[in-house]
Amino acid sequence: MRMYDIIKKKRDGGELSTEEIAFFIRGVTDGSIPDYQISALCMAIYFHGMTVRETCDLTFAVRDSGDRLDFSAIEGVRVDKHSTGGVGDKTSLVVAPIVASLGVKVAKMSGRGLGHTGGTVDKLEAIEGFRTILSEEEFIAQVNKIGLAIVGQSKQFAPADKKLYALRDVTATVDSMPLIAASIMGKKLAADDDCIVLDVKTGSGSFMKSAERSRELARLMVDIGKNAGKKMVALITNMDRPLGYAIGNALEVEEAVETLKGRGPADFTEVCLTLAGYMLSLAGMGTPDACKTLAKQAIEKGGALSKLAETVKAQGGNEDLITGGMPFARAKFTREVRSGKSGYIQRVDTEAYGLASLALGAGRNTAEDSIDYSAGVLLAKKTGEFVKEGEKVATLFANDPSLFPRAEEILLGATQLGDTMPEAEPLIYDVID
Amino acid sequence: MRMYDIIKKKRDGGELSTEEIAFFIRGVTDGSIPDYQISALCMAIYFHGMTVRETCDLTFAVRDSGDRLDFSAIEGVRVDKHSTGGVGDKTSLVVAPIVASLGVKVAKMSGRGLGHTGGTVDKLEAIEGFRTILSEEEFIAQVNKIGLAIVGQSKQFAPADKKLYALRDVTATVDSMPLIAASIMGKKLAADDDCIVLDVKTGSGSFMKSAERSRELARLMVDIGKNAGKKMVALITNMDRPLGYAIGNALEVEEAVETLKGRGPADFTEVCLTLAGYMLSLAGMGTPDACKTLAKQAIEKGGALSKLAETVKAQGGNEDLITGGMPFARAKFTREVRSGKSGYIQRVDTEAYGLASLALGAGRNTAEDSIDYSAGVLLAKKTGEFVKEGEKVATLFANDPSLFPRAEEILLGATQLGDTMPEAEPLIYDVID
Repeated sequence: MRMYDIIKKKRDGGELSTEEIAFFIRGVTDGSIPDYQISALCMAIYFHGMTVRETCDLTFAVRDSGDRLDFSAIEGVRVDKHSTGGVGDKTSLVVAPIVASLGVKVAKMSGRGLGHTGGTVDKLEAIEGFRTILSEEEFIAQVNKIGLAIVGQSKQFAPADKKLYALRDVTATVDSMPLIAASIMGKKLAADDDCIVLDVKTGSGSFMKSAERSRELARLMVDIGKNAGKKMVALITNMDRPLGYAIGNALEVEEAVETLKGRGPADFTEVCLTLAGYMLSLAGMGTPDACKTLAKQAIEKGGALSKLAETVKAQGGNEDLITGGMPFARAKFTREVRSGKSGYIQRVDTEAYGLASLALGAGRNTAEDSIDYSAGVLLAKKTGEFVKEGEKVATLFANDPSLFPRAEEILLGATQLGDTMPEAEPLIYDVID
Repeated sequence: MRMYDIIKKKRDGGELSTEEIAFFIRGVTDGSIPDYQISALCMAIYFHGMTVRETCDLTFAVRDSGDRLDFSAIEGVRVDKHSTGGVGDKTSLVVAPIVASLGVKVAKMSGRGLGHTGGTVDKLEAIEGFRTILSEEEFIAQVNKIGLAIVGQSKQFAPADKKLYALRDVTATVDSMPLIAASIMGKKLAADDDCIVLDVKTGSGSFMKSAERSRELARLMVDIGKNAGKKMVALITNMDRPLGYAIGNALEVEEAVETLKGRGPADFTEVCLTLAGYMLSLAGMGTPDACKTLAKQAIEKGGALSKLAETVKAQGGNEDLITGGMPFARAKFTREVRSGKSGYIQRVDTEAYGLASLALGAGRNTAEDSIDYSAGVLLAKKTGEFVKEGEKVATLFANDPSLFPRAEEILLGATQLGDTMPEAEPLIYDVID
């Protein structure tokens, strides 16, 4: 088999065989296929796409390029939720404890943030002492004991994806549906869950800017997951505005805790309850609606908050931060951002909101950057609300006040005011199953 | 300027600016753009093509990536002919002396053969002592003195093309019209001719298999040349069969000499006279028809043969080989290939004929291979002729008889017999000016 022939076949619109795709990914992983042939094939795939069969084969080859987890020692149904990444997306911190508090196992591997998007592992590390690295034995034992563990990715999952993504990133071949789907699902399927709920973000704060493209990606990923024997559902959720009001690691943990106490922002709470409902439903607890009610009760009765506190304690953090006995450390400096004119917030560039938080030190430009857990943005107003001239639209948090002007400029520039109240957008566009 | 943005622009069907193309070729030449970005752009160009303006800019950037020649010290009109490469194509050895014998200057830089195609420089080196490397001063002085010099490419012409072609060759991006045109013309325009006649080969022995594609390429190259201020014409000529009967370096020189003596094969003679006619016509010697008559007379009166002999002598070879005082050295072994059945030759795979000659040692698989000048194939029958069972279709020449079986197998496999006489195909499909 020759890589040249594989490139030519795809260039000419052909369908690659399972063996050809496996050959390609093996060569990416072991370095035997040179970068220039990999990027040429990615560009040909960009133009001709892939069938669902090819995309599944690509995904499974990516999954099999590195370590895989074995969760068979976990008792009961294992469910996971995966977000395609957004701004202010602290959903996992709420849905995982809800679901675990109702007896369904959540053995969660999470990622770190990059660029304008945050990552669950970073948020959890805002809790002093919280260990995001556990041995596989510790991890499984904790899930069996309390139903929930959340860790970072310590193993080498899908190294082929890491290599491929780095090349796609510099050759304008990121934006290809089968390549995106294989990248996300190749990593996701390296874990060993029974059920997966995908949260496909759409809008200005996500990498899928249109609901149509998000639906297409969701459909493809659901099909891939089902082909791998998983129970799957995908929600298309609104990322044309941040979720909730908090952007930044410690600020988001606080907001998640408030939400588990029943005092969370309406939009964020609604998305969490819907996601938790589908997770529980996939796990066999009833219809999505009935399960959403269960999720609501888990908040009202305090079970979900206790589960998060229990998890934080088990992983070395101070549970008093969760239950309220101890406040979160705040950044040394704050700055109020005030509007220069009056009007309704018509729309916001959510990605820029994420970049404003990044500019305050809350995120990473490159994977090597360190982050400031207490930095971030707390919004006072969101899309659809009226702002008077001079009124506060947000509070900025930073440990270096020289960072404020740039963040303020980004934030105000990303907030578009107008005379009329904009039409309300749905929080959840669609459910793909 | 970022290579990423250039790739993305072309990926999305945009038209690259002159500056963007210059940036790209500079980066290819100096190595600052990595291979994986080059191949990604080539694939995007494969899919979206280029406008004539982009293709001209690409050609000129390729031309300017290395050395250029200055022929201003040559007195009179300078004309060149360039073939896209074929099997048994010894045309230059005939047309250059014809044209030079009529007072038009031919300062010819030729290439070497690779794969199934031969190169004029290799053929000339079959003449013992013939120097294909001259200093620029020697070269110009010889053209001024006798009107003709033929040398190999000693300078570093179009290094960007060398790099680009090597990458295209392994990433299935060779077959792109603008990339082919820029590659051929970028090198051709590094020389300094006033007029160029392109011989665009079409059919089974050329890299353009259809006349339609050949016309498209010819049109593009003629337009590029005109944009560079050259007088241009392109002929689309038949390469569905070898030109003449000889394939292999010394064998082809012999056939060229026979042709200059007025005893050449009809097809080959006709193509040579037509090409020479257009070369003379571009140089201002009259209409193509009138100039073709001049060319014919140059053969009949012996002027063209004398000019080749003069050139061979000037470049260190033995002119008696040309004028007939001395025979060409033949290979030690010959083998007659006989047909296993009777029938008309319906069609031949001309590329395979070239590969049969290569298998006898007459060509190169890689640029580093050495070649056997006396090896090759002398055809006895060509397309359209009737062959009886057991009748000779070709004679093979080699210095290693163990090479015969493979060459014979290729040759017979590439010769398709049938009951009816096939329709005659034109020798010259079209003239593009």
